[in-house]
Amino acid sequence: MTRPITFLSDYGSEDDFVGVCHAVMARIAPASRIVDLSHGIARQDVRGGAIVLRRALPYCAPGVHVAVVDPDVGGERRAIALRTADEDRVLVGPDNGLLSLAARRFGGAIEAVDIGRSPHRLEPVSATFHGRDIFTPVAAALAAGAHLRDAGEPIDPDEIVELDMPLARAEADEIVAHAVAIDRFGNVVLDVEHDEIAAFGLRLGHPVSVSGIASFYATTFTDAPPGDLLLYEDAYRTLALAVNRGSAADRLGVAVGDEVRIRPGA
Amino acid sequence: MTRPITFLSDYGSEDDFVGVCHAVMARIAPASRIVDLSHGIARQDVRGGAIVLRRALPYCAPGVHVAVVDPDVGGERRAIALRTADEDRVLVGPDNGLLSLAARRFGGAIEAVDIGRSPHRLEPVSATFHGRDIFTPVAAALAAGAHLRDAGEPIDPDEIVELDMPLARAEADEIVAHAVAIDRFGNVVLDVEHDEIAAFGLRLGHPVSVSGIASFYATTFTDAPPGDLLLYEDAYRTLALAVNRGSAADRLGVAVGDEVRIRPGA
Amino acid sequence: MTRPITFLSDYGSEDDFVGVCHAVMARIAPASRIVDLSHGIARQDVRGGAIVLRRALPYCAPGVHVAVVDPDVGGERRAIALRTADEDRVLVGPDNGLLSLAARRFGGAIEAVDIGRSPHRLEPVSATFHGRDIFTPVAAALAAGAHLRDAGEPIDPDEIVELDMPLARAEADEIVAHAVAIDRFGNVVLDVEHDEIAAFGLRLGHPVSVSGIASFYATTFTDAPPGDLLLYEDAYRTLALAVNRGSAADRLGVAVGDEVRIRPGA
Repeated sequence: MTRPITFLSDYGSEDDFVGVCHAVMARIAPASRIVDLSHGIARQDVRGGAIVLRRALPYCAPGVHVAVVDPDVGGERRAIALRTADEDRVLVGPDNGLLSLAARRFGGAIEAVDIGRSPHRLEPVSATFHGRDIFTPVAAALAAGAHLRDAGEPIDPDEIVELDMPLARAEADEIVAHAVAIDRFGNVVLDVEHDEIAAFGLRLGHPVSVSGIASFYATTFTDAPPGDLLLYEDAYRTLALAVNRGSAADRLGVAVGDEVRIRPGA
Repeated sequence: MTRPITFLSDYGSEDDFVGVCHAVMARIAPASRIVDLSHGIARQDVRGGAIVLRRALPYCAPGVHVAVVDPDVGGERRAIALRTADEDRVLVGPDNGLLSLAARRFGGAIEAVDIGRSPHRLEPVSATFHGRDIFTPVAAALAAGAHLRDAGEPIDPDEIVELDMPLARAEADEIVAHAVAIDRFGNVVLDVEHDEIAAFGLRLGHPVSVSGIASFYATTFTDAPPGDLLLYEDAYRTLALAVNRGSAADRLGVAVGDEVRIRPGA
Repeated sequence: MTRPITFLSDYGSEDDFVGVCHAVMARIAPASRIVDLSHGIARQDVRGGAIVLRRALPYCAPGVHVAVVDPDVGGERRAIALRTADEDRVLVGPDNGLLSLAARRFGGAIEAVDIGRSPHRLEPVSATFHGRDIFTPVAAALAAGAHLRDAGEPIDPDEIVELDMPLARAEADEIVAHAVAIDRFGNVVLDVEHDEIAAFGLRLGHPVSVSGIASFYATTFTDAPPGDLLLYEDAYRTLALAVNRGSAADRLGVAVGDEVRIRPGA
């Protein structure tokens, strides 16, 4: 049975990394569609890649999902493929936490293999381009019908590396959140998900102070006059900051990883 | 009957916006090919998107053409799908003028529906990502065989929003044109189309002055020495400015929307 | 018989050049998969495009390979399609050396045609966008089953333009190499291939001096502490420079074309 493939990486669009991986997959799985989820993950930003993969996958047909953000390529980290408990999705990538958030969203891994010496890899395996030589050819073989158990050496699914992330917390009368992503429009995604928003005491239409700047908690960009900062629940049901027709990142001077302090009702 | 899809937006290539929309469409219309016309439209530049869509569509097989440049997402603008008089093309996007130039090129809209509450939309619809939740899933459903009349509430095709654009004009002995697009090579596209060029008195091989800089009206880049400014009819039969092996935009210091004054024979 | 297509250019991802070419090809060869190898070749960098094409093609299924880096579009250079001796690959592009390195890798051209007036071109052919009007429509027709001999006027395969490149050389106790490409990560690819590395006296794990900076010849990035410069054989078996978690191009201050002097054992 042929399955669709999704592909995410930090390879960017300037070089031929993505193109060569597509060529490799098209050759092994000529009947599989390949959807590029994103290749614009910040260089070597495993956490950013993990967050994008987690939020994108529910919109993807179940299939084989290969992700490559791999600062330790050629080092000792494992290369893995895993199967999720829910929806029978197969995730392929380095064992550095990149796959962990997405796996958890689908009930966790129930089967996993080390694909570092997979029979489906391209030989000779280079020291620096495992996307081409290991991850995408193994993903394509799995999409074309190969069995996960034959794709590598079995490993304990409970030993897959989890991502180590700071978490938003309440502190006195403030929410101490973190910028986890900044998009092309300068919108800043925070580490506060739908279920936590009410718990933190944020109420729609009410004023808030964001790192000292007066703002309010709105439904969408156009609720605020152009140039005003607003807090909103974004399209992935995560708390975010925007400036209507402007850049929240520029306005606040924040980069990915920075703390953002939100004071409700101020 | 399955139809091909084209997709244009201002989503850029850094984020996962385009990828997630592809995933959504691939799931709904697994047999439809999707061609990305461009995702590099300048942020929220409805006019630029409309111009690119109009000039690209004649090169595309008739099908479903979804376009998203949507500064008022979540506001009161309508989301629409329409059918053109000629070639039976279906255009899907926000009702802010983005589709209007392309529709006019194919004889105008002869049927249209408001898809804001389409049965084909993804629920819950977010306030900020209608590309994922409304435009691309409705486009994919139409490509997979759904009928336009079942995709939303009927609206009067004559009430679709038209784009409000300045037009090139003759003024004393000058043509007052506008920069409507600037490409990667620094070539500047003007708002003067093939039929108007002769009417404005431009003659191939003759000198012209462009905003005070000596130039001439040439057939192609290589007609001028490297570094020289030239005026030419571009590949879409529109008047444009180039510098052979250089950037006309830099040379003239113009940005999109700026006036460019052309004086024939000077 | 339907064949897959690969596409490489210097068109970038901001404009609609690539999208319109895809639309043209999809219309002519609806059953052919199209793999974008890269559209991030530096503007008009024929040599850079030729190198990427040569190294990418062995990873691609044999098919039709169209490449467009064409500073002399509209000038007198020929537009060609050729068949390689090995693997029956068809290469399509301008006759400016762009195809020559890839052709040589597959045994050279054994048949070639001038496609400037091909029956498969789109008319009217513009003066400036032969990618859309000549190269991709002819490539798609060939992918859809047209015969090479019917795609244009026969030309002598031995008269195809070869690329004129400086070559790395030994000079006293130094290797004088050149930066031929710099990727997104700042890694610098040199013009020294696998077979030459040993001949030049480089030995794995040994120190080298690179343009005066102490370095060593390593297997992969993680062999060096973060911030250190290292020389390694890259994933295409070519000599390259990297800084673990940094940019070798920034560190050395080199751009494409610059000389890099390597002194083994220093």
